[in-house]
Amino acid sequence: MKAEILTIGDELLRGEIVDSNKSFLSERLLDLDIETRFHTSVADDPEDMRDAFRRAAQRSDAVLVSGGLGPTRDDLTTQVLAHSFGRELRLDETALASIRRFFERLGREMSPNNASQAYFPEGAEVLPNPIGTAPGFMLDVGEALFFCLPGVPSELRRMMDEQVLPRLAERRAAGVAVRATLLRTFGIGESNLDHQLRDVALEGDVTIGFRTAFPDNYVRVRVRAASAAEAESKLEQVCGEIHKRLGPIVYGEGPETLEHVVGRLLLDAGRTVAVAESCTGGLLAERITSVPGASQYFAGGVVAYGNAAKTALLNVPAELLAAEGAVSEPVARAMAEGVRERFATDFGLATTGISGPTGATEATPLGTVYIAFARQGGSTHVDRFVFALDRVRHRTIASQIALDWVRRAILGAELAAPTLLRSKG
Amino acid sequence: MKAEILTIGDELLRGEIVDSNKSFLSERLLDLDIETRFHTSVADDPEDMRDAFRRAAQRSDAVLVSGGLGPTRDDLTTQVLAHSFGRELRLDETALASIRRFFERLGREMSPNNASQAYFPEGAEVLPNPIGTAPGFMLDVGEALFFCLPGVPSELRRMMDEQVLPRLAERRAAGVAVRATLLRTFGIGESNLDHQLRDVALEGDVTIGFRTAFPDNYVRVRVRAASAAEAESKLEQVCGEIHKRLGPIVYGEGPETLEHVVGRLLLDAGRTVAVAESCTGGLLAERITSVPGASQYFAGGVVAYGNAAKTALLNVPAELLAAEGAVSEPVARAMAEGVRERFATDFGLATTGISGPTGATEATPLGTVYIAFARQGGSTHVDRFVFALDRVRHRTIASQIALDWVRRAILGAELAAPTLLRSKG
Repeated sequence: MKAEILTIGDELLRGEIVDSNKSFLSERLLDLDIETRFHTSVADDPEDMRDAFRRAAQRSDAVLVSGGLGPTRDDLTTQVLAHSFGRELRLDETALASIRRFFERLGREMSPNNASQAYFPEGAEVLPNPIGTAPGFMLDVGEALFFCLPGVPSELRRMMDEQVLPRLAERRAAGVAVRATLLRTFGIGESNLDHQLRDVALEGDVTIGFRTAFPDNYVRVRVRAASAAEAESKLEQVCGEIHKRLGPIVYGEGPETLEHVVGRLLLDAGRTVAVAESCTGGLLAERITSVPGASQYFAGGVVAYGNAAKTALLNVPAELLAAEGAVSEPVARAMAEGVRERFATDFGLATTGISGPTGATEATPLGTVYIAFARQGGSTHVDRFVFALDRVRHRTIASQIALDWVRRAILGAELAAPTLLRSKG
Repeated sequence: MKAEILTIGDELLRGEIVDSNKSFLSERLLDLDIETRFHTSVADDPEDMRDAFRRAAQRSDAVLVSGGLGPTRDDLTTQVLAHSFGRELRLDETALASIRRFFERLGREMSPNNASQAYFPEGAEVLPNPIGTAPGFMLDVGEALFFCLPGVPSELRRMMDEQVLPRLAERRAAGVAVRATLLRTFGIGESNLDHQLRDVALEGDVTIGFRTAFPDNYVRVRVRAASAAEAESKLEQVCGEIHKRLGPIVYGEGPETLEHVVGRLLLDAGRTVAVAESCTGGLLAERITSVPGASQYFAGGVVAYGNAAKTALLNVPAELLAAEGAVSEPVARAMAEGVRERFATDFGLATTGISGPTGATEATPLGTVYIAFARQGGSTHVDRFVFALDRVRHRTIASQIALDWVRRAILGAELAAPTLLRSKG
C-alpha cells in the first residue's frame, strides 16, 4: 500500500505555518508498514486541488488529506473532492446533530456555515471529530481510498489514531499485524547504537531504525506477524533484548520525555530535588516544572549567574570562588550541596560552565561545563564535560545530563553515561 | 512569476523530520511578491524525482529544490535533474577547488565522493555555499528556472538570501522593486490589530498581512515601487504610520525576539534585573539567559516553588503567605521586591499563579497569575490576569508580560498592554 499526504491551505503556501502534520502522518503510517511516497501542499484553489486529488488517486493507494474542512468560504475540500470524482454532496443528519450538540455545549449559536460541515460526498463514511466542529470522512473513489481530516493538529492527531489507522489496518493484506514502539536513549551516539544492536532481530519481519533528536537518539522498532498477539509478543521480545544490551541508556518508551520519566521516578521514590544553575540559566528548573504536578517533588531553584548570588543564596564560600573560579569542580560541588541544604531536599543538582560567547580561557575552553549531583547522606558526584556546541544545544545537553543523573541515581545505575559523554569529557 | 518548492529525501517521507525549509522559502519568496503555488516532497527515488522535476517545470516558473546534493549514493538531485532535461554533467574546477579548500580548513581528507559535488548540469550557474561542502546551482531549462540548494537549513537559508533572491529579483518584471519587513507586536489581538490598521496604506502597492505566533501577533508589510529607493522610502513611511498608531505595542522589527530587545535595552540603559518565579518555573530566567551576554544585565533568579523557598530566599513573610495565600497580589509584590533587594538590581520581576492541574479555588481560578515589577526607588506594579490556556502557553504568556514590562518601563511607556490583556484581567 502506497500513501500520499496532501495538505491544503493558503497559509501553508505563504509560509506562515511550518506543516508538522505531514511528518506526524507519515510516521504513523510507517508504524503500519505503509510507505508514504509523496507529500503535496496546494492553496485553497479549486483547480489546483482538483489536479492534486486526481493525480494522487492515480499514483497512490491511500491519500490522507488535511485542511479545508472548516466552515468558511475558503474551505473547499469536501466540495472539490466530490466534484473531482463525480459525486454529489449529501446531508448527514447524524453529523448535523453532533455539530449542533457541540455548539450547545459551548453555549454558542450554530451558524448556517457550520451546517455546511454536515455535507459529505455520496458514499463517504463520516469520521467523527470528538474535539472540534469539523467531522472528517473516508471516501473510496475506486483507484484510491481518501481520508479527509481537519488541519488543526490536535484534532488531526486524535482522528488519525482513532479513526484512520484502524481502518487502514483492516484493509491491509489479511493475516498481517504490525506493532511498533519508540525507545528513547541518551548518552550514546547513533553509530555506536547501531553497532551495539547490529545482531538484534535480523529476521525480515523486524525493522530497527534510528533517529537523532538532539541530545537523544531514538530506536524505532517495528514488527510484523500473522496475528496481533504474535506481533505484540515479538515486539516485547525484541524490546527486551534491546533493554538487555543497552541497560540504563534506554530512559523511556513512547512519548514520555526525560523530565516526565524523572518526575515519575521522584514521585514514586518519595524523593525531592532542588537545582542551582549557572550556565543552564533556568532551563533545568523550567524543564522539571513543565511537568504537571512537579511541585510534589521540586522544591525550587536558584539561577546564580553572578558570583554574589552563588555566595549569598547558595553558601558558596567567596574564597573558593576567588581561588578556583566560578567554572570549577569545587564550585559546582558547593553549589549542588548548597542548594540541597538550602531547600532541604534529598537531591541537589548544579551546573556551571561556559556556553559563550565570552569567559573562555586556555584551561577552561568554550563549552566546558561542570555538573554536580549532591545526595543527602551520600557523596557528591561531579563531572567535567567539554561540548563544542552552540549556546542552545550546550544548555540542552547539560540539563539532560543533570536530569539523567537523577534517574540513574534512583535506579541505582552508574551516574555517567557510558559512551557518548565519556568520549567528550 | 509562480513558484514551486520541491524537497527531496527519504527522511521527509518517513516523517523523521518536520520540513521547515518549505515555509522559510515561501515566506522569503512572498517578500519578493512571488507566490508559491505548490509544495512537493519526494523520496530519493530517481523515477519519482524525475516526474516531480518535469511536472514542476510544466506548471511553475521558478522551482526551488532542496536536498539531495550531498556526497552519498542517495544524493541524486544533480544527476536526475540533468537527465530529466537532457543535460550532461560537467566538472566545475572552481567548485572543486573550493570544496578542496573547505576540507583543508577543517584539516580533513577530501573523499572522492566529495569531488562528485563539483559536477553540475551543462549550462548551470554554480551557487557557492560558504558554510558547507555542497554548492548549489541555478539551471534554466527553458520552461522554468531551477535553483538547487542543500537541505541543511542553515546552509539553505544563507544561500537563499545571498544567492537566490538577488537572482530572482533581477529576473522579475523590470522597473519593479519590492521591500518587506516584519513588525512584532505583543498585547493586542489579531482582529483588533486589523481594525486599528484598517485605513493604513490602502494603495494597491502596499500589502499588510497578519500572523499569530503565540503570544505575539506579527504584522508583515510589503511594498512595491518602481525603484529600490522608492520602495525603501515607502516601506519606511508605512512602518512609521503603523508605529504611530500602535505605539509601544510594536516591540521589535525583523528576527529579534522580545528577550533580545529587552536585553539590548537593559544594556543600553545600564540597568540590571533579577527574577523570582513561581508559576513560570524558570522559564523567565531561561529566556533572559538565552541571549548571549545576558550576564551583563541579569544577576540571577529564584525559582520559589514551595512556600519555604519564598520565605527563606525572597524574604516573603510567612504570615503574609499564610494570610493571603501564595497566589495573591501582596505575595507577588513581596517576591519582586525581595528578589530585587536580594540580588541588588535595578528591577525585580515576579510571577505567581496557577497553571494547573491542581491548586485552583473559586476565588483563584485555574489560569490566574499575578505578575509584579519592582523598581529601585520606585513603586511596585502588580497586575492580575486569568488566562484559560494550557500549561505551556500559560507560562509563555506570563513570561512575555513580565519581559514586556521591563521594556515598557525603560521606554517610559504605560506598563499594562492596552487591549488583549486588559480584557482578560
